[in-house]
Amino acid sequence: MKMTAGEIAALIGGELQGPAEAVITGVMPLPAAAATDLAYLEKAAAAFSSSAAWIAGRPAGCLIAPQEAKSALAARAGSVIYVKNPKQAFAQVLSKFEKELNPLPKAGVHPSAVVAAGARIGAGVHIGPHAVVETLAEIGAGAVISAGCYVGEGTRIGAGSRLYPNVTVRERCVIGKNAILHPGVVVGSDGYGYLNVSGSHSKIPQVGRVIIEDDVEIGANSAIDRAALDATVIGTGTKIDNLVHIAHNVRIGHNCLIIAQAGIAGSTALGNNVIISGQAGISDHVTIGDNAIVLAKTGIMSDLGAGQIVFGNTGRPRALAMKIEVLLSKLPELYATVRKLKKLLLPADAPENDNK
Amino acid sequence: MKMTAGEIAALIGGELQGPAEAVITGVMPLPAAAATDLAYLEKAAAAFSSSAAWIAGRPAGCLIAPQEAKSALAARAGSVIYVKNPKQAFAQVLSKFEKELNPLPKAGVHPSAVVAAGARIGAGVHIGPHAVVETLAEIGAGAVISAGCYVGEGTRIGAGSRLYPNVTVRERCVIGKNAILHPGVVVGSDGYGYLNVSGSHSKIPQVGRVIIEDDVEIGANSAIDRAALDATVIGTGTKIDNLVHIAHNVRIGHNCLIIAQAGIAGSTALGNNVIISGQAGISDHVTIGDNAIVLAKTGIMSDLGAGQIVFGNTGRPRALAMKIEVLLSKLPELYATVRKLKKLLLPADAPENDNK
Amino acid sequence: MKMTAGEIAALIGGELQGPAEAVITGVMPLPAAAATDLAYLEKAAAAFSSSAAWIAGRPAGCLIAPQEAKSALAARAGSVIYVKNPKQAFAQVLSKFEKELNPLPKAGVHPSAVVAAGARIGAGVHIGPHAVVETLAEIGAGAVISAGCYVGEGTRIGAGSRLYPNVTVRERCVIGKNAILHPGVVVGSDGYGYLNVSGSHSKIPQVGRVIIEDDVEIGANSAIDRAALDATVIGTGTKIDNLVHIAHNVRIGHNCLIIAQAGIAGSTALGNNVIISGQAGISDHVTIGDNAIVLAKTGIMSDLGAGQIVFGNTGRPRALAMKIEVLLSKLPELYATVRKLKKLLLPADAPENDNK
Repeated sequence: MKMTAGEIAALIGGELQGPAEAVITGVMPLPAAAATDLAYLEKAAAAFSSSAAWIAGRPAGCLIAPQEAKSALAARAGSVIYVKNPKQAFAQVLSKFEKELNPLPKAGVHPSAVVAAGARIGAGVHIGPHAVVETLAEIGAGAVISAGCYVGEGTRIGAGSRLYPNVTVRERCVIGKNAILHPGVVVGSDGYGYLNVSGSHSKIPQVGRVIIEDDVEIGANSAIDRAALDATVIGTGTKIDNLVHIAHNVRIGHNCLIIAQAGIAGSTALGNNVIISGQAGISDHVTIGDNAIVLAKTGIMSDLGAGQIVFGNTGRPRALAMKIEVLLSKLPELYATVRKLKKLLLPADAPENDNK
Repeated sequence: MKMTAGEIAALIGGELQGPAEAVITGVMPLPAAAATDLAYLEKAAAAFSSSAAWIAGRPAGCLIAPQEAKSALAARAGSVIYVKNPKQAFAQVLSKFEKELNPLPKAGVHPSAVVAAGARIGAGVHIGPHAVVETLAEIGAGAVISAGCYVGEGTRIGAGSRLYPNVTVRERCVIGKNAILHPGVVVGSDGYGYLNVSGSHSKIPQVGRVIIEDDVEIGANSAIDRAALDATVIGTGTKIDNLVHIAHNVRIGHNCLIIAQAGIAGSTALGNNVIISGQAGISDHVTIGDNAIVLAKTGIMSDLGAGQIVFGNTGRPRALAMKIEVLLSKLPELYATVRKLKKLLLPADAPENDNK
Repeated sequence: MKMTAGEIAALIGGELQGPAEAVITGVMPLPAAAATDLAYLEKAAAAFSSSAAWIAGRPAGCLIAPQEAKSALAARAGSVIYVKNPKQAFAQVLSKFEKELNPLPKAGVHPSAVVAAGARIGAGVHIGPHAVVETLAEIGAGAVISAGCYVGEGTRIGAGSRLYPNVTVRERCVIGKNAILHPGVVVGSDGYGYLNVSGSHSKIPQVGRVIIEDDVEIGANSAIDRAALDATVIGTGTKIDNLVHIAHNVRIGHNCLIIAQAGIAGSTALGNNVIISGQAGISDHVTIGDNAIVLAKTGIMSDLGAGQIVFGNTGRPRALAMKIEVLLSKLPELYATVRKLKKLLLPADAPENDNK
């Protein structure tokens, strides 16, 4: 990236203070930013956790700041660009920066890739070294299939989607447009289904598939199992973090966030805009309503209504769960009190030890 | 698949009602099944969660149902096949269907695969593109080593086993017959063993191996570490789900089920038919008896007897654990009651706040 | 390996008892060790969990034992080598053994590897079959890049580091010297960062990188995300187990231990010598002090001071957490007692059910 503060202000539609010609070549968090870096302040002056003087004095060549910070930063030597939503404006610059930093790999099939005769490869597709695309697979226009990826027979990858290296998508799955699959992701592995036949587990063939809709992102080493019969579905705009497990027949709505190491068991259905936090686990055959939030490490064993926010191994409403956590810390005290009361009221009843 | 209802009835040994010539080309859950699909009813009429009339009226071309459902489904227009165990009968059809849908890849070594001169490759083996088989490795008859797999020096893969794409099995490990390793599985990574030598962690070489017995299935991106000295062992018929961690020197018995994201720490031993549910964790050097069931998210820190069923961070017996969960929800009430009692009985004792 | 007991004693500087010429060709735990195996006893005689006679009678050809065990093992037929620290001495023999068992792969680039023209490959480097090294990447002297690995543009791998098969390190990351990355590890995947723009999640480009310092080991299928702007850092000597998640901008100090399936959320900082046990989870933007120990399955939601040892979903000090666990088991009894007291003192108040 090489932009002046003036060019950045024009890009994000902000109000520039200070030198327009300052040259910016990098992006950094404010404490680490140098004179050639762009940084940003998320919150208005009133919410500064550091002093306004310290912020104003940082060497960052250019600072994107909220309009409310104007008076506090008026004396800053370097450039400031005032906008309504600094984080969003900063992300806009980042997008431009990233396109230069990581230009899409060039269209074309690497000579070491193995692409079956019956595969259909769209315009502008990149297929990297040692990738494998099986017959009847379809790779949409502009998609990137990186080194070492495997795309199974009859699988469709939508236009503009990107599979980072060493991703595996098995046969007959569907990935929508503009999806991002990070390294090590597995899509379409068999669901975990067995019949107990006289004590041993007989495999139930998993002949369904996975449908991943548009604009979905899936983090490194996450695994999405294919359905037993029809389809495991990940809805449009849902973002999945690293090392997440999605079992067979799960249906996830639109714009959900599934954070790292969460797991969702078989046939469970999530509505739209649901947040499943890190290391949370949802039992099988459960329904989670729209906008519900399952906090970190929480276990859910039954249906959860829309908008509910829950915490703990048995998924209690957050307020109750947090109250219980406070009370648990006072449990030793409570036992001591009850022991005293018992001695007074029921002296005959209990010489035994109530409070170990 | 293309079978008539009559052929399906003959395959599963069921009693056919309705048209024998109905042509079936797919399998689906009953609510989604069309006139060319086979579906099944697991439970007898008495246990229908939907009405018998609704079930009878579904368009499914053929329905496998329990014998007890006969009277309820007598008037159905489409075919019905009555059997003792519908789920098992349906799985039998699925197996046939799947063999047509996913025929085994053809025998032969893909020209891009790298197979060392000293490797022994059995009859009918398939080795996919970009797979690597090191010297002294043995691949049993009919095994499938898919694209991008790595089989280390001296490792033996049993007859009929299947490694899906991008599986890594390091050196000197043993995989039995008819095992299934899903994409991204790692077998034989070093165990996690260090000596603290004046504050830094010095690696203890892990020179053991992994032995996976017959009929084991391992889910996507699971990792099984090699032993420090002798062997980590996964017993015959054990089924492991996705993203499971098995540490060095663990010994797992026969026909266990280890569900997604569970972890078993070093040197722990499981008996036969043990179930470790999702996200459960078992400490190191612990013994779990036959038929024990560790429920989801449970933590186990000490030995567990045969047949025990446990739940919670410290692995309590299920009944107690569930009772405690109920009581926890009433903790705020309990504190209020005790505060009242204390005021009455020990007024001098405590103006302090018992119930925050 | 082929060494005599005398040679082993010389190697580890121990005091030999019994035949110096005994030939040792393997290593085994004591119960399984044969006449050609070396085994070791960790604890002194006083701490034997088995009887001294049983230990002395094991067929192991050579036994490394603590000096304190001398009298108890004086009558042993096979060789014994007495040392101060048997585990460390044994590890020393193991290291020698392992070097023979697993000699480093030969220097050179496999013809099927794809190494970009602009990559710099150090002396003695091994690049395995189907590995990919992009332009501007630097591979330090003696490093091993195994089959199917991907090293992104501009990424530096330090001298003596080893990437096992199917590891992915994306662009512009830095791996120090003598690092070990087990199969399936992902380094440099995008951090999980989105802006909510009118209900949908807009990706914040992750343009930072990952810096992994010297002597770091990372277990199978673990994933380390790149920073949003600057760097995710794993400090020198830190050892990470399997299936661990490290989010963007995390900073981990020196010599930490991060056990299997633990997860550390964004921007959290760990001091030195911190231990994060299996399946523990640390929230984002939290600071963990030096030498803190987070026990298995623990959740941490706020800062943790140096040397703290914590347990449970909300990370309580261990002693309190363990006391609460004991008291929880007696909760049914406590409710019964309080109900009795209430009946006596507040009979009018509550015929309702306090103890479900």
